[in-house]
Amino acid sequence: MMQSDLFQFGNDIPWEQTGEGVKRQVLGYDDKLMLVKVKFNKGGRGEMHSHPHTQVSYVESGAFELTIGDVTRIIRMGDGYFVPPDTIHGCLCLEEGMLIDAFSPARRTFIDATSDDYIL
Amino acid sequence: MMQSDLFQFGNDIPWEQTGEGVKRQVLGYDDKLMLVKVKFNKGGRGEMHSHPHTQVSYVESGAFELTIGDVTRIIRMGDGYFVPPDTIHGCLCLEEGMLIDAFSPARRTFIDATSDDYIL
Repeated sequence: MMQSDLFQFGNDIPWEQTGEGVKRQVLGYDDKLMLVKVKFNKGGRGEMHSHPHTQVSYVESGAFELTIGDVTRIIRMGDGYFVPPDTIHGCLCLEEGMLIDAFSPARRTFIDATSDDYIL
Repeated sequence: MMQSDLFQFGNDIPWEQTGEGVKRQVLGYDDKLMLVKVKFNKGGRGEMHSHPHTQVSYVESGAFELTIGDVTRIIRMGDGYFVPPDTIHGCLCLEEGMLIDAFSPARRTFIDATSDDYIL
């Protein structure tokens, strides 16, 4: 079973660049749950994709045009969204900011590039 | 199966007072995953408790003295923590702020007071 440390200090965790204007920090996790920060510059995109993991997210700062399936909404600091398993979704960052993403089960590839779990 | 709406707009969700100087908003969820905002006034406490759900949390703002098992740390905006299932934990808010808590499975009692799921 995989499991993170009990505490994660933001200043100690490296940022991983995941796309143009998009970077990620992995916070706490075990096999069935993982929390992730994703920072976007204005204009940064989370390209449309899907995964079998359930996802719930919180807009920590900024503003985003968020698409889940065929529904698109503008969401801002304090808002959230829910992505059912295997549902295509993506975003465009309208104002620089950060999303806090939670996944169940954990996204194993985010901490283990050799995992044969799903990419993205 | 229970499932939230796709989008949650912070201004539209009622805050539930859960203790002195502590209130909560439930964001997205399905059976296996739930995201929750918990706002603390300075001096507000999350009393020591445990639950069978895995928990991962993010400090959205403020500062907290956080205890997990027999480990206590000061955590601030940008930090996070991981609570293994059935592990006693609690916090004291040192500077007004907010935690973003993710749980697996979902905390059913947070949306259904008649549920026979675990309290707290």
